[in-house]
Amino acid sequence: MRHTPRNVTQKLIASHLVSGDMTPGAAIGLNIDQTLTQDATGTMVMLELEAMALDRVKTEVSAQYVDHNLIQEDNKNPDDHRFLQTSAERLGVWFSRPGNGVSHPTHQQRFGKPGKTLLGSDSHTPAAGSLGMLAIGAGGIDVAMAMAGEPFHTRMPEVWGVRLEGRLPDWVSAKDVILEMLRRHGVSGGVGRIIEYYGPGLTHLSAMDRHVIANMGAELGATTSVFPSDAAVKAFLTAEGRGDDWHELLPDDGCGYDRHETIDLSQLEPLIATPSSPGNVVPVREVAGEPLSQAYVGSSANPGYRDFAIVAAMLKERTIDDNVSLEINPTSRSILETLTRDGHLLSLLGAGARLHQAGCNGCIGMGQAPANDTNSLRTVPRNFPGRSGTREDRVFLCSPETAAASALKGVITDPRTLGMAYPQVREPDDPIINTRTLIAPMEASKARKVHLIKGPNIESLPDFEPLETQLDLPILVKAGDDVSTDEIMPAGGEVLPYRSNIPRIAEFSFRGVVDGYAERARETGDHIVIGGENYGQGSSREHAAIAPRYLGMRVVIAKSFARIHHQNLVNFGVLPLTFSDGDDYDALEVDTRIGFDKLQEALEAGGPVTAQADGRTLTLEHALTPRQVEILFSGGLIAWMRNQKAA
Amino acid sequence: MRHTPRNVTQKLIASHLVSGDMTPGAAIGLNIDQTLTQDATGTMVMLELEAMALDRVKTEVSAQYVDHNLIQEDNKNPDDHRFLQTSAERLGVWFSRPGNGVSHPTHQQRFGKPGKTLLGSDSHTPAAGSLGMLAIGAGGIDVAMAMAGEPFHTRMPEVWGVRLEGRLPDWVSAKDVILEMLRRHGVSGGVGRIIEYYGPGLTHLSAMDRHVIANMGAELGATTSVFPSDAAVKAFLTAEGRGDDWHELLPDDGCGYDRHETIDLSQLEPLIATPSSPGNVVPVREVAGEPLSQAYVGSSANPGYRDFAIVAAMLKERTIDDNVSLEINPTSRSILETLTRDGHLLSLLGAGARLHQAGCNGCIGMGQAPANDTNSLRTVPRNFPGRSGTREDRVFLCSPETAAASALKGVITDPRTLGMAYPQVREPDDPIINTRTLIAPMEASKARKVHLIKGPNIESLPDFEPLETQLDLPILVKAGDDVSTDEIMPAGGEVLPYRSNIPRIAEFSFRGVVDGYAERARETGDHIVIGGENYGQGSSREHAAIAPRYLGMRVVIAKSFARIHHQNLVNFGVLPLTFSDGDDYDALEVDTRIGFDKLQEALEAGGPVTAQADGRTLTLEHALTPRQVEILFSGGLIAWMRNQKAA
Repeated sequence: MRHTPRNVTQKLIASHLVSGDMTPGAAIGLNIDQTLTQDATGTMVMLELEAMALDRVKTEVSAQYVDHNLIQEDNKNPDDHRFLQTSAERLGVWFSRPGNGVSHPTHQQRFGKPGKTLLGSDSHTPAAGSLGMLAIGAGGIDVAMAMAGEPFHTRMPEVWGVRLEGRLPDWVSAKDVILEMLRRHGVSGGVGRIIEYYGPGLTHLSAMDRHVIANMGAELGATTSVFPSDAAVKAFLTAEGRGDDWHELLPDDGCGYDRHETIDLSQLEPLIATPSSPGNVVPVREVAGEPLSQAYVGSSANPGYRDFAIVAAMLKERTIDDNVSLEINPTSRSILETLTRDGHLLSLLGAGARLHQAGCNGCIGMGQAPANDTNSLRTVPRNFPGRSGTREDRVFLCSPETAAASALKGVITDPRTLGMAYPQVREPDDPIINTRTLIAPMEASKARKVHLIKGPNIESLPDFEPLETQLDLPILVKAGDDVSTDEIMPAGGEVLPYRSNIPRIAEFSFRGVVDGYAERARETGDHIVIGGENYGQGSSREHAAIAPRYLGMRVVIAKSFARIHHQNLVNFGVLPLTFSDGDDYDALEVDTRIGFDKLQEALEAGGPVTAQADGRTLTLEHALTPRQVEILFSGGLIAWMRNQKAA
Repeated sequence: MRHTPRNVTQKLIASHLVSGDMTPGAAIGLNIDQTLTQDATGTMVMLELEAMALDRVKTEVSAQYVDHNLIQEDNKNPDDHRFLQTSAERLGVWFSRPGNGVSHPTHQQRFGKPGKTLLGSDSHTPAAGSLGMLAIGAGGIDVAMAMAGEPFHTRMPEVWGVRLEGRLPDWVSAKDVILEMLRRHGVSGGVGRIIEYYGPGLTHLSAMDRHVIANMGAELGATTSVFPSDAAVKAFLTAEGRGDDWHELLPDDGCGYDRHETIDLSQLEPLIATPSSPGNVVPVREVAGEPLSQAYVGSSANPGYRDFAIVAAMLKERTIDDNVSLEINPTSRSILETLTRDGHLLSLLGAGARLHQAGCNGCIGMGQAPANDTNSLRTVPRNFPGRSGTREDRVFLCSPETAAASALKGVITDPRTLGMAYPQVREPDDPIINTRTLIAPMEASKARKVHLIKGPNIESLPDFEPLETQLDLPILVKAGDDVSTDEIMPAGGEVLPYRSNIPRIAEFSFRGVVDGYAERARETGDHIVIGGENYGQGSSREHAAIAPRYLGMRVVIAKSFARIHHQNLVNFGVLPLTFSDGDDYDALEVDTRIGFDKLQEALEAGGPVTAQADGRTLTLEHALTPRQVEILFSGGLIAWMRNQKAA
């Protein structure tokens, strides 16, 4: 019997489905083969696994990367590194030491495998979709559950087929493809969807080019992005010494998609996202001539050898402008070694670039903040307000070609106007592969003896009360549209060192939205937060849910939610609701009290919930599965799991 | 007529003497040919020059380096960089951009010249003594005065001749020579002295080896260290493409020294300074076997090509221990390029080292803090408590050989026990010389049009009241011996960004000595600080004088003072006095009030000063020149200079 032709996404989901069916919107459970955690979210994951008393991970591969908190201003970050290293040893997890590399490209190189599922506590985990994987970003505790062998629960997304045609012109590269998607659809265009790329335009996109596109698909709000596993993937894995891990994974002839899109690559031009949203995309030529103080190359959004080599080739025997700081952030030890071997590092240094340590660095606000009142051009995936570290920053997102051209000229420059021949660089067939700082899982008998080293800043996860069925709470914060988790819980050098300490990091909650939240929350006690559209977009950090919950946030009512943050709220017992009527958003003010009655009954019934606010009756929707309702009334996922085990 | 035979120091001083005579202890004025400022002290220098309304520097060479505040967590550091760049343009100063390199070795390479004087607002300025220069560290305002063409005023030091004999054994290098000096004489052994090295042992010490020794002579409290300009200096300058700048400068046959010392290099062994003073020196073998979490290579105390190349040669095709983070901090763009060209960078990366940006970095607490409760081995010059960024740190100082051996073994290791042949590496004859980020002075006509860019954190220097002749003030702080300026005014990533903002940085004053000083000072108003021996050792940062002065510190009474800090206190109108009777130190307590009567008369008379403290009569000495007494009663050097000009 011939089955219905399937696209790659459907094949990946079907082969991992443990509950539900593939109807868009249906609750599904997926078996998870691999997990990825990084240090900024991983300490919490390890504390959660400690709370769950997990002995050893149940996945095929779990890898813990240290790539975010690399600036060690005091003992907190290096203490976290030691905690993670000993936790990884204890649990049988791969440990990527500081300096080994950024998680997403490193995971792709060392562990990426067509046909597998990957759950990562980082919103850019979808990058591994480049290899024909189903790679999803999630809150830490969802990843912890996957490490413990539990399925990942979500709702079946729509599959959005994007047919690529033609070939990119000179000076236009993969970054411009994803910027074109953002230009067309904005930062919430992908919500509830998986984007699957296919078509003849794939031929000339390497696996690392596809990584660029899949990585920044997160900025569309998509659940993930998926590419087929084809000859380009085979070439990549072969070059990485892992040809045996390749197998073909293509869409069936005649398969369908829930939505359709076509991009003719040959018609693209250099694009740039202007401050302060990845969705503000215009052609570079429209902002050409604007001065800049900084150009920044690196991050998981342009991590490949090619992305640095093209810059090196453009800068070779030239000099950057005297007023531009060109920041080079190597992706990983191996890529930096390969660039060094091939002479590209000498070209970059020779032209005047600043070479930083391998890691996420300025992309997460760990150094490299731009000067006040100046423009910064970056190849990173996000330019949310203040994410660079400079409060009133002006960050543009662009390709390495545009960043390099602008660094040479001292003003924003369309690279096509340089008058230079387009350098021909490609991913190497013989990259240096260095695994000396990627430590393999410890064998179980030794692992059991490992003692976790917890520095004085590391605090266990607090316990939270279950949601109550009767509530009467004031609104403490009213936020606008597209508020990112960077604004709810900032990253950067000042805040990231507290990621393993909820009471302390809670002080920074909502710093990008209002002043004095933490203090008012302590005075007020339990409260409600109101949000606009796409509330909680961006980073997967569950701290954006846990920290306000710690300070008494019990309910968030928004126009719509970003997927990961919605799930994080539920996981820590915070009720997410949406407005049926947009006018209600306008009517509600800070300090208005909202009353709920028989909430549990209403949520269990599945339909809308009514609430009273200053005489006004609100009708509120929810998208909770029955399992999620149970989690809320258990006090969050850990308590729910404990109850399940006890039962 | 034959003059008396002179040593190199005497020749250098004689050729620059504009007032006084060369009797040890006499007040002298020296003409200054070159100045060096770095960013952590340079912003204040530029603000001072602005207050003085200087149009263009009067020196032969003035160079502004950006090497300290390279971690940009927000706009403050990059704003300072822009302020410094525009100030340098305005004043006709060389500007070394971030990433170009650490000031001391870079200055030596590009501007060092036998026979010249150099004044630098950094305590390690004496490193240039390696080339037969008289290079002295001073507070920022003394350097500002030199840039304005004023002589540098100090007291004629004793000249301490150190005869080097023999040749260093395998695995023992220049760092062990200066550690031997510290082992013999401790952190105040050089106070009031210039150390001049001579003798046959020099033959095998390169100019960069001598830099290591001269640099860390600062840790002995010496005014500076001096080497002859000989064949090794010629070879160095020739390799740097500056052979024409060389001339010979040797001690005359039969010259004398005020003090004598001999070191037989062949008898030295690997040495290490244990926590938390550069004076705690023991042989490495005595602490071998202790675990470590970090090994750190770089800083102006081991900046040469050789210092990295030897580590690279030791690590080549080996792997560092899984529990040690090996931090490589390249000195400069040029040295990093040369190491890259010669394959050494690949060896370092290959073995698992973390490569950081070129600069001072962790040496000044800008990142790379070690984990809590662990040992860190560093090639840096200082291990004062908390300077690494970790409050209760355990930092050891050692040679690159010892650091690398320990990184390989995971425990403190005497490199002689590795069982490896000692790699033969030396300074290259053909280093890469890259001056693309070293910007030459702007011509005067263009410079006059430059507008200084001041970020919102940059505050003008406050005005201070003159010292009063009658005082009755309480003691607010009582400090112990060897308190460093790091303890009076911390560096590190949290504090350094406020170096251009006195009101703000004042909040951190005395953080390494007592809690709550700033708050108590605001409550108390004017007050006195009591110190032990060698008060204010270490860094030249004048903020350690200005910030407490801003909070009301009017008098410091100590057992003895470090030279630069003594001068900084005077420059900002704070009276430094010493105890005649050590018992008085023991008798004084916090909150005791001390009364001075007719202070001006007593100071002008030159003899001791008496004061009343709780019925006890104190006899206090001072080492002030008549000019310094005038400065105190003018309200500091800037006010004094204004008065001079007005008169």
